Amino acid sequence: MRRALALAALGPATGVNPRVGCVLLAPDGSVLAEGWHRGAGTAHAEVDALSKLPAGAARGATAVVTLEPCNHTGRTGPCSEALIAAGVARVVYAATDPGERSSGGAERLRSAGIAVTPGVLADEVEAFLADWLFVARHGRPRVTVKWASTLDGRAAAADGTSQWITGPDARADVHRRRAGADAIGVGTGTVLADDPALTARDDDGGLLGRQPVPVVFGRRPIPPAARVARHPQPLVVLEGRDLAADLADLARRGIRSLFVEGGPTLASAFLAAGLADDVLVYLAPALLGGPGLAIGDLGVGTIADAVRLELAAVERLGDDLLIVAHPTPVRASREPVATPGGI
Amino acid sequence: MRRALALAALGPATGVNPRVGCVLLAPDGSVLAEGWHRGAGTAHAEVDALSKLPAGAARGATAVVTLEPCNHTGRTGPCSEALIAAGVARVVYAATDPGERSSGGAERLRSAGIAVTPGVLADEVEAFLADWLFVARHGRPRVTVKWASTLDGRAAAADGTSQWITGPDARADVHRRRAGADAIGVGTGTVLADDPALTARDDDGGLLGRQPVPVVFGRRPIPPAARVARHPQPLVVLEGRDLAADLADLARRGIRSLFVEGGPTLASAFLAAGLADDVLVYLAPALLGGPGLAIGDLGVGTIADAVRLELAAVERLGDDLLIVAHPTPVRASREPVATPGGI
Repeated sequence: MRRALALAALGPATGVNPRVGCVLLAPDGSVLAEGWHRGAGTAHAEVDALSKLPAGAARGATAVVTLEPCNHTGRTGPCSEALIAAGVARVVYAATDPGERSSGGAERLRSAGIAVTPGVLADEVEAFLADWLFVARHGRPRVTVKWASTLDGRAAAADGTSQWITGPDARADVHRRRAGADAIGVGTGTVLADDPALTARDDDGGLLGRQPVPVVFGRRPIPPAARVARHPQPLVVLEGRDLAADLADLARRGIRSLFVEGGPTLASAFLAAGLADDVLVYLAPALLGGPGLAIGDLGVGTIADAVRLELAAVERLGDDLLIVAHPTPVRASREPVATPGGI
Repeated sequence: MRRALALAALGPATGVNPRVGCVLLAPDGSVLAEGWHRGAGTAHAEVDALSKLPAGAARGATAVVTLEPCNHTGRTGPCSEALIAAGVARVVYAATDPGERSSGGAERLRSAGIAVTPGVLADEVEAFLADWLFVARHGRPRVTVKWASTLDGRAAAADGTSQWITGPDARADVHRRRAGADAIGVGTGTVLADDPALTARDDDGGLLGRQPVPVVFGRRPIPPAARVARHPQPLVVLEGRDLAADLADLARRGIRSLFVEGGPTLASAFLAAGLADDVLVYLAPALLGGPGLAIGDLGVGTIADAVRLELAAVERLGDDLLIVAHPTPVRASREPVATPGGI
């Protein structure tokens, strides 16, 4: 399985399809063939491995694959059928496919009389596939909502000035996290007010190796001279009326993680919609008072309805603090209580 | 000097006067007499010690005293004169008296031909006298401004509800700090809205051993049935129009430290006036959005004029965070730059 995982890692890190690796073993344990998936439209890992063998050579073999073989026909046929047709005797896999359309491969294999062993090295492979699994389970990218504010929750002074609330260490941390995300999102208000480049840059302003896709949410037109239009990745513009639909759209484009950088309207909209999976607050040791709030209205009327978070980490970054938090599910006491076997 | 400090600690911990201890030593090093100050209107430590000896018995002695002997006539005569009159040969003291009217004792003693040794055990004695020295230097109590808010800077939901934003550990910490302050301050708005007891309580709601003096700032009348009117300490009501004058008033009442607990109007007023020496922010991992801001307007128009703080400590208290910070002086780059000898 470790070899299969290493093969999986040869595939492309982004896109709608997972990175999967497959090793075909002869009954004596020797390697017959290896394969991996190279991205949407190309052969899946199992088919890639099978294609390297002459017809009939995989009969009685064991297929070791990082993800449960798929059970649906997309641009390629289902891998479970290919394994059955090849006469494979046994399938060992790590992660279970949570996809609505693609799952059920293990069942299909078993019903064809193939021995199936799931869950081998599952934790490691699930960590490797975390972003893709999130999209497969939720139908949308994992969303991080980030803002920088003073201790009193302001992101700008009364005159709108905001550069720089936080210091260089906090800004460098933001750029590292930008480079780790598939996409970076802002509202049109931020584009018009700040003209951000939305690139991931090093301390000297040079571009980091990996650049997130810039996504602008909103209906106001973006000036042709906007810096975001010169981003190394092509700009995606979404309406922002229905964030869940917009996120599903991004998932279909192969975006697995979105880093929402503001402004306050967009950040508040994601939080109010319950569409923030991670919250990053860069807190500067300063106070501004006044109207320049980092977060606007969240539709919370009373304290019991506050958006509750769980602190995951608190980190000093130069003079600033980074607080990482995750929204917690609504408390049990506020949910209808099931009374199994009760009156 | 350690013995003098132990004697000082026998005096009362609050009030306008410092706790001072004095040991009179014979030329052979043996103790002739000891004294300490028991509060405003009673003998100072040096005079207390001298009073225990027959006339002339202190001639040639060394007076070891925790604070520079005073040089002014208040309700008692100046100690420096008393020591001179007693024929003391040498005075050893720890902390220098920063008081505008009372300082200069060392100079007076020297001009009378007495050997003076300042600064012995100064750090320890200054720590012991910290609150009193602060008042003597600044003419006002040390002010701590405390608030509890969500990560987005809200202290209440849209409907005004605010109990409880922070958890039990944070609340217990607040009560411990209340017990450590001479006075606790709120605005009339908070009294009318929340009817706080302003007592320092333990986890079971029982009163802690030491209770801060409740101080209400504002001009609106306080209902006779308000809980603050039943506080174990007598209520002090101040206008709140001129906070510096109000603080000077509190200093004259012997208040050395004030714990400002809100609401937003009062906290913002202290911050805007530059009268906050310590800032305590209890941050709950939650978001509220909306109008219930913990801090209102601070008169900051542009980012360069932000109230900059220095983080002193970040502490986890249950699910919450406590951030302790101190306002920093205006940065050098924004002050006129001195160019000594240079062009």
